[in-house]
Amino acid sequence: MLLGGDMKPVIILVRPQMAENIGMAARAMANFGLADMRLVAPRDGWPQKTRMKKGARQAASGATHILESAELFETVGEAIADLTYVYATTARERGQAKPVFTPEEGMARIMAGAAGDGRCGILFGPERTGLDNDDISLADAVLTFPIDPKFASLNLAQAVLLVSYEWMRASGKGGAPFALPQNTGPAKREAVLSLFGFVEEQLTRVGFFNGERAPIMARNFRNILHRLNMTEQDVRTLRGAFEALARGERKERPTAPQNVTGGAGEGSAE
Amino acid sequence: MLLGGDMKPVIILVRPQMAENIGMAARAMANFGLADMRLVAPRDGWPQKTRMKKGARQAASGATHILESAELFETVGEAIADLTYVYATTARERGQAKPVFTPEEGMARIMAGAAGDGRCGILFGPERTGLDNDDISLADAVLTFPIDPKFASLNLAQAVLLVSYEWMRASGKGGAPFALPQNTGPAKREAVLSLFGFVEEQLTRVGFFNGERAPIMARNFRNILHRLNMTEQDVRTLRGAFEALARGERKERPTAPQNVTGGAGEGSAE
Repeated sequence: MLLGGDMKPVIILVRPQMAENIGMAARAMANFGLADMRLVAPRDGWPQKTRMKKGARQAASGATHILESAELFETVGEAIADLTYVYATTARERGQAKPVFTPEEGMARIMAGAAGDGRCGILFGPERTGLDNDDISLADAVLTFPIDPKFASLNLAQAVLLVSYEWMRASGKGGAPFALPQNTGPAKREAVLSLFGFVEEQLTRVGFFNGERAPIMARNFRNILHRLNMTEQDVRTLRGAFEALARGERKERPTAPQNVTGGAGEGSAE
Repeated sequence: MLLGGDMKPVIILVRPQMAENIGMAARAMANFGLADMRLVAPRDGWPQKTRMKKGARQAASGATHILESAELFETVGEAIADLTYVYATTARERGQAKPVFTPEEGMARIMAGAAGDGRCGILFGPERTGLDNDDISLADAVLTFPIDPKFASLNLAQAVLLVSYEWMRASGKGGAPFALPQNTGPAKREAVLSLFGFVEEQLTRVGFFNGERAPIMARNFRNILHRLNMTEQDVRTLRGAFEALARGERKERPTAPQNVTGGAGEGSAE
């Protein structure tokens, strides 16, 4: 069970009641790169009752590898025996003299070596009641959530999600998985200046820039375009659009001839 | 609709398919202090079909005030008309030349004034397909999640949860709602030293500290106790426990007499 250097926390669901929540928790773990789930005395058994496991499987939405490798225990003590550091999640203050951390702080502490060479486990209680006080007394510290006290009922799978999310952030993978697509780099200034020149010429021609305020309007217009931080492609697209507007409606389409509607191409249904 | 200075983002579910997800999203919003939900063309209507709203209400688990004040729109354009800044959430790169932020970055940008004096909205797409490209093209920027690319399917309500959670963090309420309960402050050194003295005397008496290593063992034992950062109460509790062990089994109970078992108090069933 112990993997050398595997700092990923083990998610331990204590007496979970609903198969759907076990499945949703598995999905949340998979979303953020966690893999090891342990179940302590699930209310409806595991995996003996097919209905139970089926509901969980459906809710897992593909994260079945986590359900299939989930380990079953009868007591919290057995489920945490091989771990070296244990958090208990609670929504409310439970009067136990134990340090309290947010998931963000708690996951950072795991990364900083709270479990030493061993592994950390995180206990989540049953849906209706949460962990009981004896369960909590077996943990080194409490994890709780920065939640609106007026509405502090956090769904089991959502609690697992937040912890898993903070694990991914703490492990240095909290960035966006992709960035603004850049087919072309920022436009060279000569392309930008050429666009300005063309647009100003056309707007002067049609009388949009006129009178003594024309230079001010031109500068304002340039500044609007500057705010776009245009790429080469942006410049080409805008130039094409302005050119098309300046040219007005085409009399004939330059694309492949259409022998159905025949005529001048005007009024087509597109 | 516009509330002066209300920076809280509006959560906009676009063509949501499942009532349960609308309800779970409402619950997630309530957990983290968000209140305004908008629905664009829910698949099963809203709130005309009772079944739909009932499923949502059940999943909302008490966050019904959000469902009841949810506003219904036919198009994304109508749903965002009064907003000044709009994010589109996507799980994957969608090839649109738009800045990309994580929920953490995105919520920080709202706090920093991205929506000016107006309000920000966040678009979430239908469960199966996510937002379509036309929806995304109406947004200023993309929000995406730091998710394991091998398992990138994030449930709709869980996406709402992460954004709401990051909103609460960005708005400066990301701390734990309670801390380690401290009925008493850290112990005064005289109490700690007195405990050391008592324990060392007893451990010497019973022969646990003996021979030339006795001083080293005593120092190690002191350091174990030091690591507890004991409160006054901790010192009292430990002192009581050590005293009880040193005294050994009580011959007579000092508590109220029990006239049922009579005898010497040994072997009682407790």
